[in-house]
Amino acid sequence: MAQIGIIMGSKSDLPIMQEAIDILNEFGLETDVDIVSAHRTPEKMMDYGVNAHKKGIKVIIAGASGAAHLPGMIASVCPLPIIGVPIKSSNSIDGWDSVLSILQMPRGVPVATVALNGAKNAGILAAQILGSNNDKIQEKVLNYKNNLKIKIIKTSKSLRKKK
Amino acid sequence: MAQIGIIMGSKSDLPIMQEAIDILNEFGLETDVDIVSAHRTPEKMMDYGVNAHKKGIKVIIAGASGAAHLPGMIASVCPLPIIGVPIKSSNSIDGWDSVLSILQMPRGVPVATVALNGAKNAGILAAQILGSNNDKIQEKVLNYKNNLKIKIIKTSKSLRKKK
Amino acid sequence: MAQIGIIMGSKSDLPIMQEAIDILNEFGLETDVDIVSAHRTPEKMMDYGVNAHKKGIKVIIAGASGAAHLPGMIASVCPLPIIGVPIKSSNSIDGWDSVLSILQMPRGVPVATVALNGAKNAGILAAQILGSNNDKIQEKVLNYKNNLKIKIIKTSKSLRKKK
Amino acid sequence: MAQIGIIMGSKSDLPIMQEAIDILNEFGLETDVDIVSAHRTPEKMMDYGVNAHKKGIKVIIAGASGAAHLPGMIASVCPLPIIGVPIKSSNSIDGWDSVLSILQMPRGVPVATVALNGAKNAGILAAQILGSNNDKIQEKVLNYKNNLKIKIIKTSKSLRKKK
Amino acid sequence: MAQIGIIMGSKSDLPIMQEAIDILNEFGLETDVDIVSAHRTPEKMMDYGVNAHKKGIKVIIAGASGAAHLPGMIASVCPLPIIGVPIKSSNSIDGWDSVLSILQMPRGVPVATVALNGAKNAGILAAQILGSNNDKIQEKVLNYKNNLKIKIIKTSKSLRKKK
Amino acid sequence: MAQIGIIMGSKSDLPIMQEAIDILNEFGLETDVDIVSAHRTPEKMMDYGVNAHKKGIKVIIAGASGAAHLPGMIASVCPLPIIGVPIKSSNSIDGWDSVLSILQMPRGVPVATVALNGAKNAGILAAQILGSNNDKIQEKVLNYKNNLKIKIIKTSKSLRKKK
Amino acid sequence: MAQIGIIMGSKSDLPIMQEAIDILNEFGLETDVDIVSAHRTPEKMMDYGVNAHKKGIKVIIAGASGAAHLPGMIASVCPLPIIGVPIKSSNSIDGWDSVLSILQMPRGVPVATVALNGAKNAGILAAQILGSNNDKIQEKVLNYKNNLKIKIIKTSKSLRKKK
Amino acid sequence: MAQIGIIMGSKSDLPIMQEAIDILNEFGLETDVDIVSAHRTPEKMMDYGVNAHKKGIKVIIAGASGAAHLPGMIASVCPLPIIGVPIKSSNSIDGWDSVLSILQMPRGVPVATVALNGAKNAGILAAQILGSNNDKIQEKVLNYKNNLKIKIIKTSKSLRKKK
Repeated sequence: MAQIGIIMGSKSDLPIMQEAIDILNEFGLETDVDIVSAHRTPEKMMDYGVNAHKKGIKVIIAGASGAAHLPGMIASVCPLPIIGVPIKSSNSIDGWDSVLSILQMPRGVPVATVALNGAKNAGILAAQILGSNNDKIQEKVLNYKNNLKIKIIKTSKSLRKKK
Repeated sequence: MAQIGIIMGSKSDLPIMQEAIDILNEFGLETDVDIVSAHRTPEKMMDYGVNAHKKGIKVIIAGASGAAHLPGMIASVCPLPIIGVPIKSSNSIDGWDSVLSILQMPRGVPVATVALNGAKNAGILAAQILGSNNDKIQEKVLNYKNNLKIKIIKTSKSLRKKK
Repeated sequence: MAQIGIIMGSKSDLPIMQEAIDILNEFGLETDVDIVSAHRTPEKMMDYGVNAHKKGIKVIIAGASGAAHLPGMIASVCPLPIIGVPIKSSNSIDGWDSVLSILQMPRGVPVATVALNGAKNAGILAAQILGSNNDKIQEKVLNYKNNLKIKIIKTSKSLRKKK
Repeated sequence: MAQIGIIMGSKSDLPIMQEAIDILNEFGLETDVDIVSAHRTPEKMMDYGVNAHKKGIKVIIAGASGAAHLPGMIASVCPLPIIGVPIKSSNSIDGWDSVLSILQMPRGVPVATVALNGAKNAGILAAQILGSNNDKIQEKVLNYKNNLKIKIIKTSKSLRKKK
Repeated sequence: MAQIGIIMGSKSDLPIMQEAIDILNEFGLETDVDIVSAHRTPEKMMDYGVNAHKKGIKVIIAGASGAAHLPGMIASVCPLPIIGVPIKSSNSIDGWDSVLSILQMPRGVPVATVALNGAKNAGILAAQILGSNNDKIQEKVLNYKNNLKIKIIKTSKSLRKKK
Repeated sequence: MAQIGIIMGSKSDLPIMQEAIDILNEFGLETDVDIVSAHRTPEKMMDYGVNAHKKGIKVIIAGASGAAHLPGMIASVCPLPIIGVPIKSSNSIDGWDSVLSILQMPRGVPVATVALNGAKNAGILAAQILGSNNDKIQEKVLNYKNNLKIKIIKTSKSLRKKK
Repeated sequence: MAQIGIIMGSKSDLPIMQEAIDILNEFGLETDVDIVSAHRTPEKMMDYGVNAHKKGIKVIIAGASGAAHLPGMIASVCPLPIIGVPIKSSNSIDGWDSVLSILQMPRGVPVATVALNGAKNAGILAAQILGSNNDKIQEKVLNYKNNLKIKIIKTSKSLRKKK
Repeated sequence: MAQIGIIMGSKSDLPIMQEAIDILNEFGLETDVDIVSAHRTPEKMMDYGVNAHKKGIKVIIAGASGAAHLPGMIASVCPLPIIGVPIKSSNSIDGWDSVLSILQMPRGVPVATVALNGAKNAGILAAQILGSNNDKIQEKVLNYKNNLKIKIIKTSKSLRKKK
């Protein structure tokens, strides 16, 4: 059963949020993906937040754009770590609105915010959180980091050869 | 019975929000004031938003700071016009966070946003909304505007005399 | 007769402002649409603002870009609730100019500001204001909100089936 | 008779605007100072703008804070060069609101904007504009510039002696 | 002989600055156009600034992008009113760099700043400055304003007919 | 043994970071606190990041101001979830520098960013992360949330009584 | 042997950084180019920074985007002058993130920051630094500046002829 | 004879710029300090920039506030590396004006920009530039860095003992 919930405010956020799903797939971690809108399905959102930890979810990734209230509202009713992904949509003011609406939560109700459109990092962060208590997942994170390194070093070598 | 609900996310918002209460008092309009926190009392907030119009409330003024979700979340469950007051608190990033979290609502769920710390204007706006269907209130708004004018003209005269 | 006035500073604002007209049409509410420029037809603007409430207008939606003075100037001479729509034009500094010129009104003269390019929300807000004193309109707003919810829930179901 | 009109939106702007009056006094140029509020005395503002050039005014300096509409609205009805002074007030968002409301005027209606709180420079600019057609005033401007230079050079000398 | 000098930091600024030349042509005012770079031809710039008023120039329009020093440096050596046009170039940070480099001049050295890419308004402002002492030019400005109005009113009429 | 590492770039960050230590104490969770500067003790920082998970640390909270590189650099060498706390210091540009230096991490290396000066929330988030695999800690988080609610409801009651 | 090291966080930065390589080639100065990622190859980065001055490198140019830690981290371990090039990437918040992450270094660890995407200027600055102790290189810099001037003057002449 | 020139636009910049003088004194490096204003003593500024390298100056540190043109104008006439120090003055817009006026130099004319009010770092950078060709100075820079490290490690130890 999925330990990671991935929710987003609108279907138009899916292309960005897919990066979280994909990287978690790479790590062999199942995800439960849904559309939950703070402003259009507030009751469903409340239900989701109140019950997630009872269903075995251990981390929630929530993506939203504009005046993005989904991550913070889930955080207000749920004891789990909530990862917020600010998304830059067409009528956004350069993404500042979603960044600040997610990041600047009041004392008592944190949201673990990642970079604008940073769904991939949200996925990795979820894996790191699960990996804190699971050596196999942590090892996968270490391998992933190692692969990033190897890739860069290869690129560096091929660049230096060309010269 | 009060037709105007005034809510705020924290007691520390009261000094700002008092300006809305005061100006509405000046207009002879009763207000129902409460503390309702999107992040600390989410269920109370939902109740408040769902039921306000059933209790005779016709406009809601909601003030909040930081990642301010109160006005937008009330707007998501309530058919009434919601006036949002961005409040600049101590850990705010110059007020930009509350301004953008309240203003940049997605299509379908408007919040009538006023200036940073603009609770007085929120009060006047509430009176204008009620005044749309009530000639006595509209007359009070017109008188208020007239008094603003008279005051400025007096100041102008005394300034020009001094010279 | 139309109870909602919709004005804009330039014909180039029409594609954005049309969203307000359309949603109000959906609600079965008539609109009176005109081009009124604060900077190019200031006298017409003053006339419009001074007389609107005498002609039966109950809410005004005013859209403008750049140093957007139309909503605020109408608000200065008119007792009605004024909804301001900041519009992002080509020479705008990312829309910040119109947002701040409309939002940051001085004490005494509120403008109900919606999101950048948020004309649709301006329309809904106008309906909510009229709905405050008209149960039929309020019901339409409630239905609209309900439809938003149903749509999202359908999208959610079809998304979850695919997986 | 005064050729330079100095107006401001509120008496609280006077301490800033006084710098314009003072520097113009230093240049021996008379000023006509008044409080004219775009939002509280719109009709007076229109009158002022429409008639200024008929009364012998040749340049207008207009200072305002927040969503500052005074300079732009005067510019919309007046053929004279209008100098706008953005003023940073207490509820301003760091002055950005007044800067952008004055600077970002649409094509056709310029405002000559100076720095935030830059009333002194507004005064000098007014003198430069009059000096364009008046050799005596232009000479005073040149002398003023020369004195700035002499002062800095003296400060530089005394600094270097100390070492 | 030209009374208006138009200079710009680079040939790539010409498409923007052409709007100033064109509107002044419309007003029948001759312009002297040149490329003068603060950073690449500093001596030429100093010469230009020191001598402009001796050659009959009465107003200078200076356009530049990025860390735009041309308008301010000309202002430092020249007694004439200098109009600065911030230009948004490709590596600009959204135009904020040129706006702030031109607008925020220190006490003693004003630049009359217009909107980002606002060369047309710079041209009109130059005409208004000359018009301060020349009734014929002022009349042209008044006519221009009147034509703006007529155009908007026609657009308004045709819009309202269509409905 | 402590499962939560708390590090900061300078001793001057301690007053802010103390809030994280205090809230975790409230939750009965031990912390290992140290000063580790990315720019002044880079080797110590690398050591810290490489070895933390080997010593039983499960989450790291890293606070830093200005061009804040500590959270991101720890994240680059460490498989654990890293919580970044942007701190507003005296020469900061309103805190934007630390917010963006911590938040905007590249794909592959997430930092869980909290609000400006949001050390308390960093502490709660750390507890939530541990609580994901520890029912007792999760219960404490739920109790904490419940207490926030009770406190607000009490404040609300006393406010409403006074009226 | 190369006296100038040019490094960048990712191969995708090469098109921008190439401008630094090219201008230094024009000056006849050899460069040592490599990909060194603060976040993906932190150990290689540390090695690079610690050893550069031992290998004869005299200046390092480091380009990076987003939360750009490469220039600052190299500066923390290396006694050489480090030139930082902020790069605007696709998920950047308009480049502000890389600008502030590189510019706002804490007391004790400077980075010589150039404009957003300003790799060409980074190259010229490196030449100026070497030129400080090498008359031939300084002469090349002077020639380069002279050629900039000549080019502008030619453009100016051809522009003025056309008229 | 001094190899490092330190200039600033106004005497009021001295308290900030003193940090550069002091750190260079600590390194045993002589400085030549002067007040040179781009806008008030433009000719002196040009002289300074044209002749500095002829007098044995090898690096120039230039501090200025607001629309800060001094560093960039010196850079336009001088082949030396110019270090720019943005200074936050009272009428600055939060320092953004000086940062952007100094940083965003056009292609061909670099300024090595340090953090807002970062005069100390400007001094260290000057030492690093001289140190590139002088092993004794480079050694001092290395010692300085080492001392920073030792200090932090001591602070860390005393902090950990207290606990």
